[in-house]
Amino acid sequence: MRAIDWTDGTTERPGHIRLLDQSLLPQSETVLEIDTVDDLIDAIKRLAVRGAPALGVAGALGVALAVQNLDPAEVDKAIDKLRVARPTAVNLALGVDLARAARPDGAAAVLAAALKVRDDDIAASSAMAKHGAALLGEILSDSAASSARLMTICNTGGLAAVERGTALGVVQEMHLTGRLKQAIALETRPLLQGSRLTAWELLQMGAPFDLIVDSAAASILAAGGADAVLVGADRIAANGDTANKIGTFALALAADYAGVPFIVVAPESTVDTQTASGAEIDIEDRGSTEVAEIRGMRLAPEGIAAANPAFDVTPAKLITAIVTDKRVIRPDRGDRPDQPL
Amino acid sequence: MRAIDWTDGTTERPGHIRLLDQSLLPQSETVLEIDTVDDLIDAIKRLAVRGAPALGVAGALGVALAVQNLDPAEVDKAIDKLRVARPTAVNLALGVDLARAARPDGAAAVLAAALKVRDDDIAASSAMAKHGAALLGEILSDSAASSARLMTICNTGGLAAVERGTALGVVQEMHLTGRLKQAIALETRPLLQGSRLTAWELLQMGAPFDLIVDSAAASILAAGGADAVLVGADRIAANGDTANKIGTFALALAADYAGVPFIVVAPESTVDTQTASGAEIDIEDRGSTEVAEIRGMRLAPEGIAAANPAFDVTPAKLITAIVTDKRVIRPDRGDRPDQPL
Repeated sequence: MRAIDWTDGTTERPGHIRLLDQSLLPQSETVLEIDTVDDLIDAIKRLAVRGAPALGVAGALGVALAVQNLDPAEVDKAIDKLRVARPTAVNLALGVDLARAARPDGAAAVLAAALKVRDDDIAASSAMAKHGAALLGEILSDSAASSARLMTICNTGGLAAVERGTALGVVQEMHLTGRLKQAIALETRPLLQGSRLTAWELLQMGAPFDLIVDSAAASILAAGGADAVLVGADRIAANGDTANKIGTFALALAADYAGVPFIVVAPESTVDTQTASGAEIDIEDRGSTEVAEIRGMRLAPEGIAAANPAFDVTPAKLITAIVTDKRVIRPDRGDRPDQPL
Repeated sequence: MRAIDWTDGTTERPGHIRLLDQSLLPQSETVLEIDTVDDLIDAIKRLAVRGAPALGVAGALGVALAVQNLDPAEVDKAIDKLRVARPTAVNLALGVDLARAARPDGAAAVLAAALKVRDDDIAASSAMAKHGAALLGEILSDSAASSARLMTICNTGGLAAVERGTALGVVQEMHLTGRLKQAIALETRPLLQGSRLTAWELLQMGAPFDLIVDSAAASILAAGGADAVLVGADRIAANGDTANKIGTFALALAADYAGVPFIVVAPESTVDTQTASGAEIDIEDRGSTEVAEIRGMRLAPEGIAAANPAFDVTPAKLITAIVTDKRVIRPDRGDRPDQPL
């Protein structure tokens, strides 16, 4: 099923949102049927739905829900609340705004605009998967391209989008076309999106894979254990420097040392030409608790401090290629994202 | 208190071993008073006592316990069992053999030999701490040397030895002499020796520190967040390649990129001139469970496979210096450990 989708109304129940509760994965696969904006906000806040593209779709579908169900006077208040349910997720606000713009044309137009956000995301994922797989065919040896071992960090799959996703979408494309020998998934401390979500998605798609602790990636790469590294992106600066989940930069250093291609996969909307370089990107520190505990279990002694940067910046010089839904940028050949399409 | 020690006998109770149960740290500080070799073997197997130097002392003191308490006919059997309680820990067998060699001279001689193993470890730790701190004074700028930010992985402190330890012993020496601004401890997945044990030791010594997830080290180093990296070693090859806890190699790559000195601290006995290079060092894979679970809590889906190399090898070319109790070797100047002392 899709990570998030719209279910058309019937005589018994009006149209509503359906989503897989990611906060319960992988231990439980629970589908939430969401009829109110308040329930959607709750689902967003507790990370039942997460991932930038999925949050954009959630925002857009939430506006459709509000317009369909609420008294017109209440709609704006509900939408404003939804728009800031996670203040740092720019896609959420973007999705809300895209659907809200259709309000003058009525509820059906709002729903159509929201479904277009969903469908555009699906199309973008599909384009990235094709571009990424084609790139691997170009840059890997024939034997590696037909039997690839692909390493990835965090969760960048269908759970972070509607279907397929970004970096993990490329892994899936290689698997579906019989060209994946093995995926290697980093567990991705502190929040373990790799061991909880990516491992679950790889199991679902029947792809062979090994899970590893983050710090094992470097020696596995140096020993020739992977043919390429594929990662997502939270923001790509004009010069190609890329902010992504903490650990991505360490992975890029290890890939560089091992001579393994390092590929960023992200929608074109992630390219931010207003940011000149990675030095301008602020990195959020999410506090000690995520490091000192794992899923509520205390690991470290009480009274300690932890530094917990949620993202890091990989310099463009360590990036072989940036794959978007529109193009493939090659920093290794001197290309920059701010060159015209 | 010492991580492991001998308590002299009184009229009420014969001499015995006292150790801090590390398997319960940091949540509980429980001291075990051990009177029998069987109880000591149990403590070793469940990691109540761990760390190569500490295991050597445990082996030696265990022989003293056997000779003191058992019928002469039973001593050999008990010692043989103790010697292989952890088959991969060469120090355990070494400690057993050193104490056992004194048996012809009687129980007092065996105890004296065992206490010499303990005292030699304390002296070696102390020498490493002094050599390491002196080296930092040489290679760091004056301001960094007097207010150093030191990054370290795993647990290499007093808990892994009798007192002080190796890399963390140098951190402690800098702290005791007023030259430590901050320690930065990697949590060290999968077994979390950093967040459980090193964090506990740093709290005990009152040293300021931040705990971090392993994959945050690279960006903190690149941002100038540490002045030197200090690590222990499990084996040092003749050419200086060093096997240590998984994650050490990734840390060395990040230190190299950031231009930060990377220093190995280990007793001279860790240098194995019979191993020509890191390529000859076998790396143990400890199975999926440690990655898929944390302290018994399931994280990953059932039915997944994990690669779990326990160690990695850092090439000598990434190592600035190797500090032992006897000398400082400088791979960055072309020195090799197999050159004569």
